[in-house]
This record gives sequence, C-alpha cells and structure tokens, in this order.
Amino acid sequence: MTVRMNDLGIVKRNITRADKAAVEKLSRFGVATVHEAMGRVGLMHSYMRPIYPGAHICGTAATVLLQPGDNWMMHVVAEQLQPGDVVVAACTADSTDGFFGDLLATSFRARGALGLIIDAGVRDIRDLTEMKFPVWSKAIHAKGTVKATLGSVNIPVVAAGAHITPGDVVIADDDGVVIVPAAVAQMAADAAEAREANEADKRAKLASGVLGLDMYKMREPLEKAGLKYID
Amino acid sequence: MTVRMNDLGIVKRNITRADKAAVEKLSRFGVATVHEAMGRVGLMHSYMRPIYPGAHICGTAATVLLQPGDNWMMHVVAEQLQPGDVVVAACTADSTDGFFGDLLATSFRARGALGLIIDAGVRDIRDLTEMKFPVWSKAIHAKGTVKATLGSVNIPVVAAGAHITPGDVVIADDDGVVIVPAAVAQMAADAAEAREANEADKRAKLASGVLGLDMYKMREPLEKAGLKYID
Amino acid sequence: MTVRMNDLGIVKRNITRADKAAVEKLSRFGVATVHEAMGRVGLMHSYMRPIYPGAHICGTAATVLLQPGDNWMMHVVAEQLQPGDVVVAACTADSTDGFFGDLLATSFRARGALGLIIDAGVRDIRDLTEMKFPVWSKAIHAKGTVKATLGSVNIPVVAAGAHITPGDVVIADDDGVVIVPAAVAQMAADAAEAREANEADKRAKLASGVLGLDMYKMREPLEKAGLKYID
Amino acid sequence: MTVRMNDLGIVKRNITRADKAAVEKLSRFGVATVHEAMGRVGLMHSYMRPIYPGAHICGTAATVLLQPGDNWMMHVVAEQLQPGDVVVAACTADSTDGFFGDLLATSFRARGALGLIIDAGVRDIRDLTEMKFPVWSKAIHAKGTVKATLGSVNIPVVAAGAHITPGDVVIADDDGVVIVPAAVAQMAADAAEAREANEADKRAKLASGVLGLDMYKMREPLEKAGLKYID
Amino acid sequence: MTVRMNDLGIVKRNITRADKAAVEKLSRFGVATVHEAMGRVGLMHSYMRPIYPGAHICGTAATVLLQPGDNWMMHVVAEQLQPGDVVVAACTADSTDGFFGDLLATSFRARGALGLIIDAGVRDIRDLTEMKFPVWSKAIHAKGTVKATLGSVNIPVVAAGAHITPGDVVIADDDGVVIVPAAVAQMAADAAEAREANEADKRAKLASGVLGLDMYKMREPLEKAGLKYID
Amino acid sequence: MTVRMNDLGIVKRNITRADKAAVEKLSRFGVATVHEAMGRVGLMHSYMRPIYPGAHICGTAATVLLQPGDNWMMHVVAEQLQPGDVVVAACTADSTDGFFGDLLATSFRARGALGLIIDAGVRDIRDLTEMKFPVWSKAIHAKGTVKATLGSVNIPVVAAGAHITPGDVVIADDDGVVIVPAAVAQMAADAAEAREANEADKRAKLASGVLGLDMYKMREPLEKAGLKYID
Repeated sequence: MTVRMNDLGIVKRNITRADKAAVEKLSRFGVATVHEAMGRVGLMHSYMRPIYPGAHICGTAATVLLQPGDNWMMHVVAEQLQPGDVVVAACTADSTDGFFGDLLATSFRARGALGLIIDAGVRDIRDLTEMKFPVWSKAIHAKGTVKATLGSVNIPVVAAGAHITPGDVVIADDDGVVIVPAAVAQMAADAAEAREANEADKRAKLASGVLGLDMYKMREPLEKAGLKYID
Repeated sequence: MTVRMNDLGIVKRNITRADKAAVEKLSRFGVATVHEAMGRVGLMHSYMRPIYPGAHICGTAATVLLQPGDNWMMHVVAEQLQPGDVVVAACTADSTDGFFGDLLATSFRARGALGLIIDAGVRDIRDLTEMKFPVWSKAIHAKGTVKATLGSVNIPVVAAGAHITPGDVVIADDDGVVIVPAAVAQMAADAAEAREANEADKRAKLASGVLGLDMYKMREPLEKAGLKYID
Repeated sequence: MTVRMNDLGIVKRNITRADKAAVEKLSRFGVATVHEAMGRVGLMHSYMRPIYPGAHICGTAATVLLQPGDNWMMHVVAEQLQPGDVVVAACTADSTDGFFGDLLATSFRARGALGLIIDAGVRDIRDLTEMKFPVWSKAIHAKGTVKATLGSVNIPVVAAGAHITPGDVVIADDDGVVIVPAAVAQMAADAAEAREANEADKRAKLASGVLGLDMYKMREPLEKAGLKYID
Repeated sequence: MTVRMNDLGIVKRNITRADKAAVEKLSRFGVATVHEAMGRVGLMHSYMRPIYPGAHICGTAATVLLQPGDNWMMHVVAEQLQPGDVVVAACTADSTDGFFGDLLATSFRARGALGLIIDAGVRDIRDLTEMKFPVWSKAIHAKGTVKATLGSVNIPVVAAGAHITPGDVVIADDDGVVIVPAAVAQMAADAAEAREANEADKRAKLASGVLGLDMYKMREPLEKAGLKYID
Repeated sequence: MTVRMNDLGIVKRNITRADKAAVEKLSRFGVATVHEAMGRVGLMHSYMRPIYPGAHICGTAATVLLQPGDNWMMHVVAEQLQPGDVVVAACTADSTDGFFGDLLATSFRARGALGLIIDAGVRDIRDLTEMKFPVWSKAIHAKGTVKATLGSVNIPVVAAGAHITPGDVVIADDDGVVIVPAAVAQMAADAAEAREANEADKRAKLASGVLGLDMYKMREPLEKAGLKYID
Repeated sequence: MTVRMNDLGIVKRNITRADKAAVEKLSRFGVATVHEAMGRVGLMHSYMRPIYPGAHICGTAATVLLQPGDNWMMHVVAEQLQPGDVVVAACTADSTDGFFGDLLATSFRARGALGLIIDAGVRDIRDLTEMKFPVWSKAIHAKGTVKATLGSVNIPVVAAGAHITPGDVVIADDDGVVIVPAAVAQMAADAAEAREANEADKRAKLASGVLGLDMYKMREPLEKAGLKYID
C-alpha cells in the first residue's frame, strides 16, 4: 500500500471498539469522575455544551472529519455506525454552521448511535430535544451546508482540543465531554469505581458539618505552605 | 425634501408590512426550513439565543436603532407597533447592556408585538419567561441604560449580521433568527412548504434504516469525488 | 504588624457582615432593580451565568482568591462561612477549570452558605441542580484542580469586573450578579423599595396600552433633541 | 424578469460608483473623521484589523459574497474591478479561512484595486506586506479554500456589521473601516473637511495647556448635570 | 457630609500619589519583573494590548470612570492631571468604542500625563503612534462618543480585572499592565531590584548551556514528584 | 512494562526526528504552501500569532504538556532539545498565563531550539523580540507561573487544534503554524516544491492582467454551476 500524505477521502470500515464490559462500566460514571480517574486528562474544551440539560451518554467513537460548510460525510458515517456508537465530528476549519439536524439524527438513531459530539454547529434543536437525541456542540445555528467536498470517516481526529481514535470511549454529560482511549477503558472504569466508592461516605461527613480541612487532613500542609490566619 | 447624510433621529410611521397570508404561511415553518427554502441566506449570527427554550415566532419587522447605553428609542418604537410585529433592535456599537425588561415587554405586548430580537443585552429574564414574552439576544445583563441620545425607528438596520428592512418577515426559534424580505415572503413560504412536503416520508425511511447514501443517491458522486473505503 | 506587599496566603477570620435587616430587605428585589437603585453600578460582567434558571439569592460575601488550576482555598473558606453567606471566588488568572463540585457544595451548605459566585468554572452540574445549590460562573467544565498553592480567604477581590469586600451584599438571579457595599446596604434596600413601589402601577398602565412616551412625558424632550417623524 | 428569492449565483456587471471627485476628497480624511462627519454611523466592527500598520485607502466598493471554505467568487470579482475599487468580501457563515493570498492580490492590483476588506481570513501576510497590498480582515490564517459553490458579485452585502452597496465609498486605516453611501459621498466629504478645518487650531490650544473643559465650554453643562468636586 | 450610595458624578481633586522615588525606581523594571516581585498579583487581563510595540511607562494613576458611549469625563480628568500621571480609564459597561484620540492625547500630554490605560477602545492610532503617546486598550475602533452622562474622576475603579486606587503606580509595557498599590511601591521596587540582581548571571549561565534543571536544583524535587524518564 | 492510563509525569528521551533533508527542503516554503501541499490539513487554529512580524521557522517538534499556571516542564524539555528543534507546548487547560520568557529562551537557544509554539501565553516580549527568538502563542501576558505539578515531555499532544507527535516537522510564519507528520515530510516537501514551481509564472500572468477565470479555466464550470451575469 502506498503511503498517503493525508487521510482525506477515506472511510475506514473496520475499527476496534473498546471492550463492551468496560464501556458498560464506564457508563455508570459522570464525566468529572472519569476525568479524575484518568488523572485529569482527556477533556474537550469547555465550549462544548449539550443542547438540553440532563443528557448522559457513554459509547464508542465513530469519527468523522468535515470540511467547512459541507456535511456530506455525515451520511457516509451513518453507514459505519453500530449500536452503542457515539459520533464525534471534527471540522478542518473553525465553523459554527449547522451540519446536523433531525433527519440525520433519525438516521443515526436507526443505526444505533447514542448521540453526537460536534466541534461545530447543530440545528433543529427543538426536534432533537423532543426526540431526546443528545448533541454536544460548539454552536447552535440554522445555517445549512452543501454536499461537495470529501472529508473522512473513522480516522483519528482532533475535536475541541481532544484527540480521538475511532473506537475510543466517549462520555458526555452536563459537565462536558471526556475521551477514554480504548486500551485503558477497563483501567479507567476500575479507577472511576474506586474513586466513587467512598464518595457517599465523604458526602455524608461533609453534610454533617465535618470540614474538608479535617477530612482530607489539609491543616498541616496549609500551615507548612505558609497560610496565616488573622483577625 | 433635503437629502440627509444619515438616518439618525428619524421615525418612519408608514411602513409596508409583508403580506399577511405569506406571514401566516411562513409561521408554520421553523427557521432552518425557511433558511433552506431561501437558498441558505438571511440568518443572523449564531450568538443570537432565545432567553428560554421552545419559543417560535413569525411576524413583521419593526426596527429600532439604539445608541450604546441608551434605550430611549425603545419607547418610541412602541408607538409604531401593530399586532403581529416583531421588534428588531440594532445598536450603533457593540453592547451587552440590558436595553429591555418586563415593563417594555408589557408595553410592546399591549401594542400587539410578538417578541423582540436585539443585537445587545436584555434583562428581567425571569419575568419575561413567566410572561412568555420571547426575546432573542446577544447577552443577558442587568445593566441599565439612560435616555439621552436619539437613534431611529423603522429605518433599515443591520443586526447580528443580517440586513432588515421594516416590514420584512422575522422568524425565530431555538435554532436562531432568519429574515425574509417582504417582496419574497410568499415565494419563501411556498418553497418552505414544498421542502417540508416529503420530510415525513424521508424521516420514516431513515427511521426504518434506509441510509441517506441510498435515499439521496450519493454513492456514485462520492465515488467520483474519490472516496475510498479501506478495512 | 509588618506591612505586606500582597494578600496571598491569608485567611481573615473576622469580617463585618452587612446589616441583617438590610440584607433581608434587599433579598426581596431582583438584580436589575438593585442595580438601578444603586445608580447603575456594582454589576459583574454579563458572562456570569447561573447553572440553572430561576435561582435567586441574597447574602453576605465570603471571598476566596484562587490560583489557576488549584482549589485548595475552597476548603479553607468553608470553615469561615456563616449562615447567609455567599461565597465569591476570584482567580489570579483567567481560568475555566472546574474548581467546585457537589462535595464542596455539600460542605458549603452544611456551613449555611446560600450559593457560589465564581469567576472561573464549575462542575457536577447535574448534582448541583438536583441539590438546588445555585452557582453563577464563567464556565462549566469537568476539568479538575490540584491543591498545591496558597491563595487567600476574606480579602477584597475583583471578580468578573466587580470589586467585593468581605461582608458586602451579593445578589444574584437570572439577570446576573450585583454587589452592594455593606455600608450602603440599607440605603440601597430603601431605594430599591421606592423604585418598586409604583412598578405595579406602571405595569398596569402599560398593559392597558398607555405608552411610555406619555407615561414618562418623553415627547417634549424627544422633540427638543430633534426627533423627526416622517411618513 | 422574474423575481428571485435570493441573490446567489449572480454577477452584476454595471454598478454606479460614487462620484470620483467626492472619493478623491474623502481620501484626504481618516476613518474616525469621516465617521464623525457622517454623524457616527457606517463603521464596521472593531475586529476588522489591518494586516500591517500605516495603510490608508479610499475607493469604491466592489462586493463579493463568499460561501464558507470557498473562494471561487474571488476570481469572478477580479474581472469586474476598475481602477480605484476596493473589494469588500462578506461570507454567508462565520469563517476564519484564508480566502485570499498574494496571487489574488497580484490579480486584483493588475485590475486597479486598492485593497481588500474581508469579514473572514487572509493569508500570505508577508508577501502582501512586501507588495504593500493592504487588507483588513477578521483573521489571519493559512487555511486554504476550495472552488465548488457559487456566491455572488456586486450585490449588496453585510460585512462586519456594515451594509455595503456596490459603488459605495470604503475608507480604511489603522482605526478600522467606514462605509459612505455613494449618494452622500460629497456631503460627507464636505462635512469631513469642515470638521478638520479647525482641528489644527484646537490641537495647538490643547498643546498649550488650554483645557477641553474651557475650549468646549463644558463647565456649565457639567455642573448642571450635577458634577461635584471634592477634596 | 451625607453618605452616598455610589461614586458617580464625583471628581476628587486631592489624591495621594505614590512616593516619587519609589515610582522612579519601579520605572527601571518591566511589568513581568514587578508582577513577580509583588508575588504574582496586580495584573490586568491579557486582552489589554499596546497600540504600538516598544512602549514602557511607569507613573501614578489618575482614574476615570466612563459611561458607555460617552467620553465626557475624559475632559474632566485632564484638569486633574499632574506630571508623571498615567490615566486609567474604566467603563461601567463592556464597550469597544473609541473614547480617546489625538486631541485628548495632546491635552493629556500638555498636562504631563505619560499615557493611557483604557478598558475600552481608542482611535487615531496613526497620530498617537507618531506622537509616541502610548495607549494600552481592549480595542481599537473609530467609533466616536457623546458627552451626555456623568461618570467620575479619581475614585477607585476596576479596569481589566484590576483594582486601582488613584495614586497607585501603573507600569505598562509589551507584556501588559500591572498595578502597584502606593503603600507598597517602595517595597515592590526593592523586591524587583533584588529579583533582577542576579538575572544577568542566570542569563549568562543558561546561555552557556547550563540547564535550569541544574541551576535551580530541580532534579530532586522532580524525581520526588514522580517524574519518569523513558527511552 | 505496565500499561499506563495517561502519559503524565513522563519524559521520553529518544524520539525519532523527521529526516533532516526533508526538513531542510520544507524550510524553503511558507505555511500556506505546505498546508496546500498536504491537501489542506495540519494547521493550528488562527488564534496562534507570532510575537513579532516576519519570523519563519521550520524544525522538528519537541513537545511539552503543561499544567495550568505551572511551567516546571519547560525546564525539563530544555534538556531534551537538539539543534533544529522547535518546542511545541500544550496545556491541560485553557490558559493565557505567561509560561515562557527571556531566560527560558536563552536556555532553549543554547540547546539549539529555533523557537516556541505555545497554546497559552508568553511574556518578556521586548527581550524576545530583541533576541529574535520567535514565539507563536495564544496570548501575551506577564502572569507568572509556579513549579509544582508534573506534566510531560515528548509525548503526543494536541495544541491549538493540531495533533503533534514528537519529531514531526513544525513550520511557522506570519500565516500561522502547520504540522507535517515525520513520515510524510519528504512527500510534503516534494509536493510543496511542485506547487511553487509554477507560482512565478502564474504571478507574472496575473500581474499582466490575465484573469484567474481564464488562467484556471473557470468560466465553463462557473456557467455549469449556474452563474448568471446581469447588467
């Protein structure tokens, strides 16, 4: 096979999705917890916001690289979807156009997709909200797109500051979007579980008035760091 | 009449509003549909957002040009409103001040206005939400304004990247705001209707698992454009 | 006591909180009203938004100065809270990190805090919404923080363009956040009350179709300013 | 001729350019002066910045409407240029792509164009700077574009918040970009001249230490407005 | 004297300027050095940029609070200036208007002012550059302003995220703007001097190839923190 | 070796740098040319700007991942530099802090580095400009940083929307920053050369008045696309 200078105009059909059990386990945890369990890495930028509150999805990434003002590849990625996938859409240029609406959502859902993460714009917000098809996006805009230029499907992409390899785990909720590489999905799930294990206990203590200063034994390190109390 | 160098300090009383039947017909369609029907033109920037979800209005534009930090003209435009109007407010400078609140909304509503589109800020969000008086704005801010400098009413304005002539049709929903020139309102309404005619059919097909690739016959043009499938 | 070049690494234990009666009276009014009553000063920037709609708090400021990427001081401020306090968090650098989540909210609430105003990011949005612990912030982001560098507690800070002295009154609702210096809290409350006194009357008049032009007697000053009506 | 719903895919060959003498006279004044002479209207947004300092152009607008990621129409507008024209480029969507570089600049210059105003991105900055071909843009970005979708040439456009009719006067310098409608070009030139007439005198007075308070006789109005001097 | 709810409409004539010797000493150091010497506090936001490169000023703050779209107070502050002052202008609302140009600069310079720091816009960039009157601003915009509403002069203000008391030391260069409270000016100057004392030595060592890792003895703490070297 | 969940706290010593000859050849071309030669991929966002105009570098990437407000790793990466390297710095959170100044530049230069690309802030702009040490950054800010938390060196990072593997080619000039994967460096260099081969010829033709419409044979496709000329 010849080496190629870029990955435009390519659709990769076979991708290795993260282990189902690991994905299932990760789906129990929120974005903040998984991000902490990973050691505080893997987040998309804070401008990625859900189109309605309360959505929470966890699935395997099918990726699509779009050209500005052109959503042709959205139809191409639809064919590659498997149940449990989350579509992650990047764009070769900054764009707020509405690349995605309720018809595509209907198609994606028919293929088993759980939702869309798009580093660009989305439209048909009311329909998508009624369908409960969750989307995290940079913008909401009615601006439509053409179908004239090739992008790619299921290649590694950068979206909203995160690097996504097809098959990685994507978790999204009201706090944002986090990517877990497929190779460490199980480990991340275990770490998230461990992290949550004693959250209920901590919450109860804090609710009863115990201070984090005492619960986390911070008084000594704060004093060592030079904290001064004055009146 | 002498020619004037600018249109500041002017209130135009008689404006030609778009045909009522066309407006009524356009009111059945969302912003994205009308924008597509128009050939993908006429949208305001994506930063224009509704103050609460779910609002959908369609009416004739009464325009107002504001000076920064000054909402005097808001009271002037109120007198010019007719039932079915939507106020479109531009500002001569970038501003996030709250030029509009529940008292003005009460007055606008009493005159028959359907809502406000403002390329600046708005306040009294909770009251406006309870009143169900919809506003699309660039910002929400409690910052009040003075009444000291003249702007104009019912002159052509540019707001959020769109050009609005008084009497044009303004449609706004969760996807943003689109302007339809009065002269083409009927044509746009017909085109929107045609566009929606087979949407239900398309939706049903996509929901059943038919791919857009096949429904829109994209496979051949994609291949011609050079799309490669790899494993 | 030696003079210090800056106020980093300091916790002030005794602060003078605004008069309880004044705070209670101010709590009846929204941000826009208090801001007007104050003469249109004291607002934070418009980028400060509530994490859920409808919240409205009024309390005394406990301040915290954070270092970027570090929420150590959040635990320190918890100990200094008294019932009725609102925590106001500034950061020494622009940051959208999530310095605050549901565990800290549990702790703050246990100490009697009414909510948080943070010129940075917050996370655990769904939990905070369910708890009805209101937060106004610049960003929502799952990005976690470390505990390594000292900031300060209960020193004067600048947050979102406003200057806050510990003990000042903080009022926040859907329109934003306003600060009332403790020394003028009673005066501001009285002015807000006076301002609201005839709002109901004004609203009724406007609802009945009376124009602001007439109610506020604007026709003459508008004419003097040169406003021209044309047909 | 049939009425059209939009102006996409159109090239208008004959446009009425502003009077040459008026343009020539306007070219003596800076953007701030002309904007003041016009009564403080006609400016583009402040994000429009020159690619190098010190450029100052004044010419007649040839307009082009671009589609995102597509600079096809740039070649179409080249043919319509006449000596003294300034190209004003708008885009149907927010974009920072580099639609323009040194080859197009060479072509535009060969046709007599004085410069480019583009509400999007530009590239080849070093070459353009060496050629002294001035560009005012929203962004600088190497991102290239395709040639696949039609826009229009010499139709009225909105760019950076201003409305431009082909043939209008465009003036640009380090302070930004201002548009003077062709119909009032002579009037604006005269007003600018009158405004500058006594600037030298004012400058000399101020330089000698005379205060604006006295030169503009502001003390009385300030006192009437309630200004208080304290010690 | 009656207590006032806000400080609008006030001009304070007598302010205590920072010690001349301290200001003179501070003028030898750049913004980054003074900011470090202060313990990393006192900076304005990074959006404050000089209108031309290479300017460096250090003086005592005369403050002015502006209303949006209104530069009346700029003439009022001119009268209060003394040689060595730097005008610091805040605005009661976000604004990019050009509140200041070459005529005001001429007046300020005649009164001995060294430059302007403005959390808003400025114009007449070419003239100001030729005059070498330095300005640090949020925006450059030709947009003019009116003279209709009172602000204040020489009251404490918040500008670009910093709190400034009249008389404080203001230092500005290509890295931004830092504020040094008058009370600690001498201490800050001494600390800056100490900080710079061995910079030349450090620079020479680093230039010779010595690593910061060794010069600052970082290897051990890095290892303790867990840094791993792999091949 | 155990699998790790993230790459924090790691320094990779041996990286495979792109072929020297390919890098040398690429250094002859600007960012826009290489980006086009690559098929319009590989660019960083347009917010990455040089601190002074006219710089142009081409080298091999040494990468560093920073924590917000912490520049410890900058000293760690210095040791790993080889002549011809360009440091590419990413941050785990959005930050405008000044992580880099003239001392680090002195150290980097002593190790042979050509410049710095940083998706965050930089300071000591005047010194860096005098040293002619080029930096492309998101912000300029005097805000200093601590040395408390580990990041990593020479791991793959995402910076300003681009994915960089250590050893990739980094090219930066006034148009922005482009990344060429090491594996395709030679191919990209050849393609860039081919692209530039006939640029001089094209430029001469365009300068002589030949239109792009004719030179690129666009008239027929434009007509097919439906372009209409009107008078």
